[in-house]
Amino acid sequence: MEYQQRYRAYQEAIENYLHGLFTQDTPYGKLYESMRYSILAGGKRIRPVLTLEFARLGGLDWHLALPYACALELVHNYSLIHDDLPCMDDDDLRRGKPTNHKVFGETLAVLAGDALQPEAFRLIAQAPGLSAQSRIDAVEVLAKACGADGMVGGQVLDTVYGARDEASLTELNRLKTGAMIAAAAELGCVAAGMSAEQRSQAVEFAQQLGLAFQIRDDMLDVMGDEQVFGKPIGSDREEGKITYVDVRGLDGCAREVEACTARAKAALEQWEDHAFLWELADRLVGRNQ
Amino acid sequence: MEYQQRYRAYQEAIENYLHGLFTQDTPYGKLYESMRYSILAGGKRIRPVLTLEFARLGGLDWHLALPYACALELVHNYSLIHDDLPCMDDDDLRRGKPTNHKVFGETLAVLAGDALQPEAFRLIAQAPGLSAQSRIDAVEVLAKACGADGMVGGQVLDTVYGARDEASLTELNRLKTGAMIAAAAELGCVAAGMSAEQRSQAVEFAQQLGLAFQIRDDMLDVMGDEQVFGKPIGSDREEGKITYVDVRGLDGCAREVEACTARAKAALEQWEDHAFLWELADRLVGRNQ
Repeated sequence: MEYQQRYRAYQEAIENYLHGLFTQDTPYGKLYESMRYSILAGGKRIRPVLTLEFARLGGLDWHLALPYACALELVHNYSLIHDDLPCMDDDDLRRGKPTNHKVFGETLAVLAGDALQPEAFRLIAQAPGLSAQSRIDAVEVLAKACGADGMVGGQVLDTVYGARDEASLTELNRLKTGAMIAAAAELGCVAAGMSAEQRSQAVEFAQQLGLAFQIRDDMLDVMGDEQVFGKPIGSDREEGKITYVDVRGLDGCAREVEACTARAKAALEQWEDHAFLWELADRLVGRNQ
Repeated sequence: MEYQQRYRAYQEAIENYLHGLFTQDTPYGKLYESMRYSILAGGKRIRPVLTLEFARLGGLDWHLALPYACALELVHNYSLIHDDLPCMDDDDLRRGKPTNHKVFGETLAVLAGDALQPEAFRLIAQAPGLSAQSRIDAVEVLAKACGADGMVGGQVLDTVYGARDEASLTELNRLKTGAMIAAAAELGCVAAGMSAEQRSQAVEFAQQLGLAFQIRDDMLDVMGDEQVFGKPIGSDREEGKITYVDVRGLDGCAREVEACTARAKAALEQWEDHAFLWELADRLVGRNQ
C-alpha cells in the first residue's frame, strides 16, 4: 500500500474512533463539549499513526491498537489545553482556532484536561482483544511517558527553569516531546506483543525522529513562512527561549536533522517492511509545516 | 486488633509509602517538591485506609495493596491542588497550611496536579505481587472514578452548573466525592481478588458511607465549631451553594445520616470480621471534625 493511502487509512480510523468518544447525554455536557472541542480539532495525528504502524509491523490487526493510539492522543490534547492556559504559555490560538479556555473558560479548560488523562487510561484498560499483560504494560508505558519523569517534567524544565545550554535543551525536549513520541512507537509494539529488543529499537527510532522533528521545528521558527507554518514566525525567539538554532546555527541544525533521520532509519533494520516509516521520517524532515 | 491500633498501622504504612515517592535527584526538583508538599500534608487518609481494610477482609496481606491505596491518595491530592486554584475555588488555605499554588505558584501547581495522575496509574501498573488482571482491573476502577463520568464530572456540576435541588445535589456528591470513596473500597476487593458480588457490596457500603459523610459535612458547616472543624463556618452558605441542610433541615439531615450509616453497615453482612468498618462508619457520623 502506498504511503499516503496508508496514512489516510490510519487517520480516518483515528478520527472515527475519537468522534465516538464522549457523546452520551450527561448533566455535565459542557465538559464533554470542551473535551471534544480539543480532541477533534485535527492535527497530523503523528503519535497515534506511529502506534498503529508499529502494531501492524508486529503482525497485529492494527485496528486492535486504536485504543492505545487514541489514548496517546487524549493525553497529547490534555497537555495542549493546559499548556495554553494563562498561567502557562497564555496562548489564544491553537491550530488557527481559539484555545480551549478562550472558548470554554479557564475552569472548564482545566477540568477538560484533567478528565482526558484518566479517560486515556480507561481506553487502554478496556481495549478489546488485547491481553491483560499487554494492557498493563501499555498503562505503564503511557504513565511513565506523561508523568513527572516524562512530559510534565519536561514542561517544568521549559516553563519554570528554562534551557540554558544545549545539554539542558536536549533534556527538555527529550522529556517534553520525545517521551510521548517514544511511547507512541512502544505502545504499538506492546499491542503486538513484540520482544523487549524490538521495543527498544522502536523507541530508538522514535527518539531520533522526535529530535529531528524538534530541531526542524526550531529551524522553521526562524526560516518558515508564517502562513504555511501556522504560528507567528520568531515566536520562540521573542519569548527569549533558547533553541537549537541558537546553539548550532541553521547549517549545523540541517546537518543534525539529517544525522538523526539516518539514525532513526537505521533503527528499523530488522523490519523489512519499513518503507512507510522511512517515508514518514523523510516527510517530517522535509516538511514546511 | 483494636480499631485505633489498626487505623494507626494503616496510616503509618501509608505515610511511609508516600514519603518514599518522588525523592530522586532530578533537574526538575521543584516539581517533586510541589507534589510532596501536598501528598505529605497529612489528612485522615480515609480512602487508602478503606482500600487496605477491604484487602485484608479479602484475605490478602494488606501491605500488597499499598500501591492501589496510595494511588487513590495521589489522585485525591491532585484534585485538591486543582480545586484550590484561582480559576476554581480560589482557596489560600488547605488543612491550615497555604495551598499549593500559594507556595509554588500557579504554573507549578497545575503541573504538580497533572503529574500526580499518571504517577497514580504507574503505582498500580508496577504493584508487586498482584496479577496483571488485578492491576488492569484496578486501573479501570480508578480511571472511571476520577474521570469525566466520576470525580471531574462532579466537579463540573459543582463549579460550572451548581446544584439546584436535592436530586442534582445528590448526583453532584455521588460523582464529586462518592465515586472516589467507592473506588477506594473496590480497589481493596480487586487487590484481594474478591467476587463481583463482594465488590458490589463493598461499593454499596462506601457509597452510603460517602453520602453520610457529605451530609454530616453540610451539617457541620452550619453547626460546627470553627476551630475544631478547621474551615470557616458557613463558608458553603456564603458561596451561595445549596446544601443538604437547605433541602432537609438539620433534623432531616441527622435522620438521613443515621439511615445511610445503617445501610452501610448492612452491606457488610457477609464479612464476619466487619468490626473495624462498623466503627469507622460510626466515627465518621459522630465526628466533629
